[in-house]
Amino acid sequence: MQDLRASDIREILKVTQKPEVISFAGGLPASELLPARQMAELARNLLLDDGVRALQYAPTEGLEVLREIIARRLGERLGLQRQPDEVLIVTGSQQALDLTGKVFVDERDAVLCESPTYLGAINALRAYQPRFVEVPTDDDGMVPEELERRLESVDRVKLIYVVPDFQNPSGRRWSVERRRRLAEMAARFGVPVIEDSPYGELYFEGEPLPPVASFDDADVVVYLGTLSKILSPGMRLGWVTAERSLLRRYVLAKQGVDLHTPSLTQLLAARFMLEHDLDAHIAGIRDVYRRRRDAMVAALETLVPLGVRFTRPAGGLFLWVELPEGINARELLERCLELDVAFVPGGAFFANGGHENTLRLNFSAMPEERITEGIRRLGTVLSSVAMAAG
Amino acid sequence: MQDLRASDIREILKVTQKPEVISFAGGLPASELLPARQMAELARNLLLDDGVRALQYAPTEGLEVLREIIARRLGERLGLQRQPDEVLIVTGSQQALDLTGKVFVDERDAVLCESPTYLGAINALRAYQPRFVEVPTDDDGMVPEELERRLESVDRVKLIYVVPDFQNPSGRRWSVERRRRLAEMAARFGVPVIEDSPYGELYFEGEPLPPVASFDDADVVVYLGTLSKILSPGMRLGWVTAERSLLRRYVLAKQGVDLHTPSLTQLLAARFMLEHDLDAHIAGIRDVYRRRRDAMVAALETLVPLGVRFTRPAGGLFLWVELPEGINARELLERCLELDVAFVPGGAFFANGGHENTLRLNFSAMPEERITEGIRRLGTVLSSVAMAAG
Repeated sequence: MQDLRASDIREILKVTQKPEVISFAGGLPASELLPARQMAELARNLLLDDGVRALQYAPTEGLEVLREIIARRLGERLGLQRQPDEVLIVTGSQQALDLTGKVFVDERDAVLCESPTYLGAINALRAYQPRFVEVPTDDDGMVPEELERRLESVDRVKLIYVVPDFQNPSGRRWSVERRRRLAEMAARFGVPVIEDSPYGELYFEGEPLPPVASFDDADVVVYLGTLSKILSPGMRLGWVTAERSLLRRYVLAKQGVDLHTPSLTQLLAARFMLEHDLDAHIAGIRDVYRRRRDAMVAALETLVPLGVRFTRPAGGLFLWVELPEGINARELLERCLELDVAFVPGGAFFANGGHENTLRLNFSAMPEERITEGIRRLGTVLSSVAMAAG
Repeated sequence: MQDLRASDIREILKVTQKPEVISFAGGLPASELLPARQMAELARNLLLDDGVRALQYAPTEGLEVLREIIARRLGERLGLQRQPDEVLIVTGSQQALDLTGKVFVDERDAVLCESPTYLGAINALRAYQPRFVEVPTDDDGMVPEELERRLESVDRVKLIYVVPDFQNPSGRRWSVERRRRLAEMAARFGVPVIEDSPYGELYFEGEPLPPVASFDDADVVVYLGTLSKILSPGMRLGWVTAERSLLRRYVLAKQGVDLHTPSLTQLLAARFMLEHDLDAHIAGIRDVYRRRRDAMVAALETLVPLGVRFTRPAGGLFLWVELPEGINARELLERCLELDVAFVPGGAFFANGGHENTLRLNFSAMPEERITEGIRRLGTVLSSVAMAAG
């Protein structure tokens, strides 16, 4: 069934290749913000002065220069004090999810996750045939009492998977209190937490919140980060940080799956961070996405009378919509595609299905006018569907 | 146990970082042949004229331009007529081995392999917990009668894994007849063959032999190739070609493990092949490696009186040594490391262990004088060990 869903999304994304389509379906960073010009000079210089290292085999753990930069950033940006040897470079954080399955999950083990949760994590972990147990989740994160009940009663819980910062698909951010309680509970039950944070630096107001890992005194939290949303997704660079002996298991697993992450992309990213100001670059991304979020929220406000509920995310790339019960987002999508508007039906993001009246909207990849126009068309279709539904 | 072995090799490779060590332990292409200068200009131009594509997300299957070039090469160089949509780009062919495990192997299934076989394949597949069944192998490849007996008698055989061209570790190349018979038998028993050919283009004399896949009328052969040994290992670029519905299963598996292979490296490799003459580049590699093989064989000839047997590979990067029974290559290694010479003990390359009197020597990474000197030292140690053994 999951395969079918993955291919559903692939089909949607294929349609959205057409330039006339207003696509809220993808999860692409804004192409115009990719620093191609700077990268061109960096890549040339890198290959001229350090060409052998860029083209030769590298250690499975990642190249030292990049591990050092990431370790330093974890301290400066998130308050996580890590040494370079506590950082493993991976081929995008999707790989970290697959390695997580290899390291922790056997057939019929239980994985606790948010409801909804990141589709890519479902896909990666499903290969290891766990039972997914959805933990009821509100605007502040997993409900602690619900999580505790499952930790007490569910058999063979091997991990808790969470995306606490501006989650894909819901756009929600966990409160500090919920983060603290998750770390405390995971320690008490001795269950590892996978804290996946691709969007943590894309907050639109105020300050970043401390990661779950910052409350972890028991070395049970594995923290995943990535450059995909703050520098370039096509470079496929992510990292895992965890307690050393646990990280060692990730390294051994990675050795079997791709030997190491490409050397060239690692060194290029390291040079970017050494020679340019990544924080200033991220601030620029935040400004653009904030305006796009504002445009989408403003346009959606006009739909509220129809009983549509939606999140107002304080960061990230996505906004989550709940339609009135009885309206099926897949059917809505078919009608929208006729008007050249695309999105992803929300059912795909629930590990055990259902919730067909939900949908995910991406706001990062398109200018404000297109967002406004796309939501207008979505509203038109929705009105006629709602009318037909009575 | 395998972890221990993998870490053994890591330890050896760590020692060999020291510049004074003569290392036959790695499997590195010659660093001085990596085309860093050409890549510097290509990377700059690529990022200036096609920067968004190089830095943005890409399809799981790989970028069209690279799939087209590889499909064309498969036809021109190997006589395999393939369309671009029959080619999947992977993050190094090591990833293809992991995907093979995901697609074909469940716990307790049987995998037939050569004896010895590629350690990286053992590592990748072992994660899926198969039984490895070693098929007796001579200088021409797997012995057909032995293979047939196992196909008849072993329960749950899910795949046959072979490296027919200048195998790592043995340096052996399968005869054309054995290739044909493997394809015929695999078709008859309906068992998929994984034909892994990283060294196929590195033949030192004559012409390349037709791949097993060229005799495959039943769509049972999955062919794996890579740019690691002919262009750059650090770029981590390989490919899988197979019948479409089978390849589709690899694509779905890859989607879960890393979404896609980095865009930048794919486009850079494609530009290299469009703007430079890869065949001429490979011819240059062949010339260098041929001389190094010659130097190693000549030096080893002096050890023959001691009862040492070794292969004289007609291509590739490795040469395989069998010591007299009773001499343990791990112990020999310890003595050699004292003289700053390293190699990999051969026991690691047997899926079910044993064969501690064998070792693998790499000849691609070092100039002739160093090879001669290293083998001289190896000979010295070997003489004293043989003397002590009586």
